[in-house]
Amino acid sequence: MNEPSIFTKIINGEVPSHKIYEDERTYAFLDIHPVQPGHTLVVPKKQVNFMWDLDDEDYHAVMSTVKKVANRLKEMFPEQKRVGVQIEGFGVSDHAHVNVFPFSSTDTFRRHVDMNVEPDHDELAKVAERLRFS
Amino acid sequence: MNEPSIFTKIINGEVPSHKIYEDERTYAFLDIHPVQPGHTLVVPKKQVNFMWDLDDEDYHAVMSTVKKVANRLKEMFPEQKRVGVQIEGFGVSDHAHVNVFPFSSTDTFRRHVDMNVEPDHDELAKVAERLRFS
Repeated sequence: MNEPSIFTKIINGEVPSHKIYEDERTYAFLDIHPVQPGHTLVVPKKQVNFMWDLDDEDYHAVMSTVKKVANRLKEMFPEQKRVGVQIEGFGVSDHAHVNVFPFSSTDTFRRHVDMNVEPDHDELAKVAERLRFS
Repeated sequence: MNEPSIFTKIINGEVPSHKIYEDERTYAFLDIHPVQPGHTLVVPKKQVNFMWDLDDEDYHAVMSTVKKVANRLKEMFPEQKRVGVQIEGFGVSDHAHVNVFPFSSTDTFRRHVDMNVEPDHDELAKVAERLRFS
């Protein structure tokens, strides 16, 4: 058994998160270093390194949550032209995750976020409040 | 009915492509301006603007093909550390598509490709030959 990842600790409630959505197999919460407001991470509860390591059931559960979150972001950020997805896996490399965020230009889609900036938890809490599935 | 997109023409065989995989609902072929060798586009046969417009059946069919292609790329390009996914939608904006490609660094993941470079169809044909599902 691997050490619990930061995401596993978030799922278990040992580390706080700005949660958006949860079901039996998946968990979604705001990235604290957003590319754009609303930037959400969707993770499988099962801790695996890569999305491609998931069995079909967990994989499709994650992708269903991605679609739910994308439609929610589209509705909440109508001023943005698109909702994009990135599966990259650097940063947190021991727990597969999907980035979902609203954006309007290819430069925004590709931009590097400064991970040293202090997260604005007040702002994140407000965004999470709007996005959260009740 | 919208005008047929370039991808619909590819699916219908009216425009040639370096095809990798096809099933009832999806079609996968090489991007002619690859971020990395093996860069594949997975598209729904149904022509919609955004992935989020697909019904669940077509959406999951596309995501199943993405997983198939990702595992194939992992196997064929073991020297690359990851297989990444981008859903962006600029470039070809009238037909939803998923970019899948092997890569090893976040700079590669984010790099802009020069769309004015002449595609190397000989090289693309060789890569497609290796990747194609028989």
